[in-house]
Amino acid sequence: MKKKLIAEFIGTYFLIFAGPGAMVIDEITKSITHVGVALTFGLVVMALIYTFGHISGAHFNPAVTIGFLVRGDISFRDSVYYIITQFIAAIASSFTLLFLFGNVANLGSTLPIGSEMQSFVLEFILTFVLMMVILGSAVHGKAVKSFAGMAIGGTVGLMAMFAGPICGASMNPARSLGPAIVSGATQHLWLYLVATVLGAVVASMVYKMLHE
Amino acid sequence: MKKKLIAEFIGTYFLIFAGPGAMVIDEITKSITHVGVALTFGLVVMALIYTFGHISGAHFNPAVTIGFLVRGDISFRDSVYYIITQFIAAIASSFTLLFLFGNVANLGSTLPIGSEMQSFVLEFILTFVLMMVILGSAVHGKAVKSFAGMAIGGTVGLMAMFAGPICGASMNPARSLGPAIVSGATQHLWLYLVATVLGAVVASMVYKMLHE
Amino acid sequence: MKKKLIAEFIGTYFLIFAGPGAMVIDEITKSITHVGVALTFGLVVMALIYTFGHISGAHFNPAVTIGFLVRGDISFRDSVYYIITQFIAAIASSFTLLFLFGNVANLGSTLPIGSEMQSFVLEFILTFVLMMVILGSAVHGKAVKSFAGMAIGGTVGLMAMFAGPICGASMNPARSLGPAIVSGATQHLWLYLVATVLGAVVASMVYKMLHE
Amino acid sequence: MKKKLIAEFIGTYFLIFAGPGAMVIDEITKSITHVGVALTFGLVVMALIYTFGHISGAHFNPAVTIGFLVRGDISFRDSVYYIITQFIAAIASSFTLLFLFGNVANLGSTLPIGSEMQSFVLEFILTFVLMMVILGSAVHGKAVKSFAGMAIGGTVGLMAMFAGPICGASMNPARSLGPAIVSGATQHLWLYLVATVLGAVVASMVYKMLHE
Repeated sequence: MKKKLIAEFIGTYFLIFAGPGAMVIDEITKSITHVGVALTFGLVVMALIYTFGHISGAHFNPAVTIGFLVRGDISFRDSVYYIITQFIAAIASSFTLLFLFGNVANLGSTLPIGSEMQSFVLEFILTFVLMMVILGSAVHGKAVKSFAGMAIGGTVGLMAMFAGPICGASMNPARSLGPAIVSGATQHLWLYLVATVLGAVVASMVYKMLHE
Repeated sequence: MKKKLIAEFIGTYFLIFAGPGAMVIDEITKSITHVGVALTFGLVVMALIYTFGHISGAHFNPAVTIGFLVRGDISFRDSVYYIITQFIAAIASSFTLLFLFGNVANLGSTLPIGSEMQSFVLEFILTFVLMMVILGSAVHGKAVKSFAGMAIGGTVGLMAMFAGPICGASMNPARSLGPAIVSGATQHLWLYLVATVLGAVVASMVYKMLHE
Repeated sequence: MKKKLIAEFIGTYFLIFAGPGAMVIDEITKSITHVGVALTFGLVVMALIYTFGHISGAHFNPAVTIGFLVRGDISFRDSVYYIITQFIAAIASSFTLLFLFGNVANLGSTLPIGSEMQSFVLEFILTFVLMMVILGSAVHGKAVKSFAGMAIGGTVGLMAMFAGPICGASMNPARSLGPAIVSGATQHLWLYLVATVLGAVVASMVYKMLHE
Repeated sequence: MKKKLIAEFIGTYFLIFAGPGAMVIDEITKSITHVGVALTFGLVVMALIYTFGHISGAHFNPAVTIGFLVRGDISFRDSVYYIITQFIAAIASSFTLLFLFGNVANLGSTLPIGSEMQSFVLEFILTFVLMMVILGSAVHGKAVKSFAGMAIGGTVGLMAMFAGPICGASMNPARSLGPAIVSGATQHLWLYLVATVLGAVVASMVYKMLHE
């Protein structure tokens, strides 16, 4: 279990260092562009899955951990350890960005452009699909499991690409909580906590029904 | 069969949510750029193949389903179920975009820039090659089938990249029908229905001849 | 043999339709950008290798065919058939672009920006490395051969990305000959025929020495 | 051993030809953009791993070689040969760029934008994570080792993407030394030599502790 939590810590730390870091550095240098930010998110997830997937399952995301909890793939006790680790890693990561660059671009916080309803619906759909991709590509008995890292990283990358400009494409309570708490931009945080967990849970339940 | 149709529904729904959604959100936020839209199309096809390929075959495209029908890989009855599901998913997806963003960018409809002849020829060639890639990488006995998702997703991505600015790079009657019907931009729809099916059918026949 | 030549024809045709086509369409619509053109080249090579690699070896490139000839991997007779097929496909492809778009951007011809010496050296190095990548990733006994398509497609993509703005990053006599002959921009064609073949042949010989 | 050193030479030479070459050519032609430069770095590492990984282990990087030395995966004697080869290849590569393009963009030297402290911390974190990805994806007993090239290439690409605009995202003493020495931009070189080696060594030690 210690190894798993260290893997979750390093993975979540770096995921939330690289992705929101890209947003911060793009604000400072105006060179990465939105396309570069989205590719950063996709590639970091892909790389971390091949690095830590065989150790901790490479969740890095409380919504995903809760999605697995609903299915009974992880015990309640372990899921609590996972989620606490992910939140601590997220906060540590945002503090590193704050230390290096100051409070720029809200440290890469996810903020809705447009109405909260729009972003809520989007985050729900994105996390629902992300959880379906995880279950379909990494868990399903007939899946080509070695490609799960490509599928899941690709999904996060494309979500960030097309939906990022509206809702930030969080899909991950830890990814939203770290930058929001450390930068102080907490006004819409509830949305990213609720919609993502809801999306993952509904996906887990739909997937379960399908296979019974 | 129920599982297959649900997989086709979710896959087609999200393919036509993400790709045309990228066009809509780019129109609103001017941040995704054409390169980002094309990458979205390629990545979503790749991810969905690894998610649903082992369940439904991951068609998400009536032209591809008809291409398989011509070869006898799917029964007539099943192909009708597949195609109806794909069209319904496409329409549901365009309605979601309409609900979220209003009738922006014709909800990502494919429209010819330049002459209809140009776009007809392009769509025919693109769908012909797409079907050849599918048959060569996912069906051929000696293919490295686990990489079919990379090959097919990569093909859709590059088609969208180079041909998208002229013809929209549909290659998929459902992908053109959903946004066209819901947004009302139906004037060139016939082209995308006819040229894509023709391309897939001719590819299936050429491929069949080659292997007899 | 017939199947192999048809695979080489379709593959070379589409490679030289998509890549130079991206240059033509970017000239017309100003939307693809150099990054998009380079990604098109990389993705089309990747996809075609997984589609036709197990049929013809997926050369699509006279320099590569000659590189294999030097090693004795292909008979002289077969290599002549391959090369003739590749050149015919290249010309057919450029005629299709001419028919669709007129003589725009020299149909995507490779032309040196700067001195011929610069482009000659670059094309030699690029094709040398491309041939090394092919031999190392697809032929070497211990290679993870299933990933050869990723390695080779990735190589073509990165070459186009970094060297394209200077020399066009041809690495392929057919890719240079088709657009040059059909558009009439033949003044520097010799360079692309000589430097690429030289690069591939030297790589084959270096690789042979290494393994004896 | 001779084969291994030749593989390290060609690999390091081309890595430092393509990546910094992209920076040089972007300075001259203003067409590659930062996104294109980052993709070049990622793709060249990916392609070279599939080409030379089974021959030399595809280090191309003295920090990585020292990281393996700390673990006892390579003998001291061999690591010295590797590192000398990598430095010579890096210098040869920068001389080729100088010959072709003149002393443009400091031949792609890594230079800190902002404070040295910022770049030192960043290079330490980047190389730490890079070494963890290498150990987790290519060395760990349960890793899907065939995907290590994707994970490591993807990591280098995303590092270049998000951190490049601040610190140059070197992660590699040879990649910094070649351009710095040949162009004369050596004022910050120490930083890139120290921080990267430190990051790799600490990662190796952390990983070792985890598995004991």
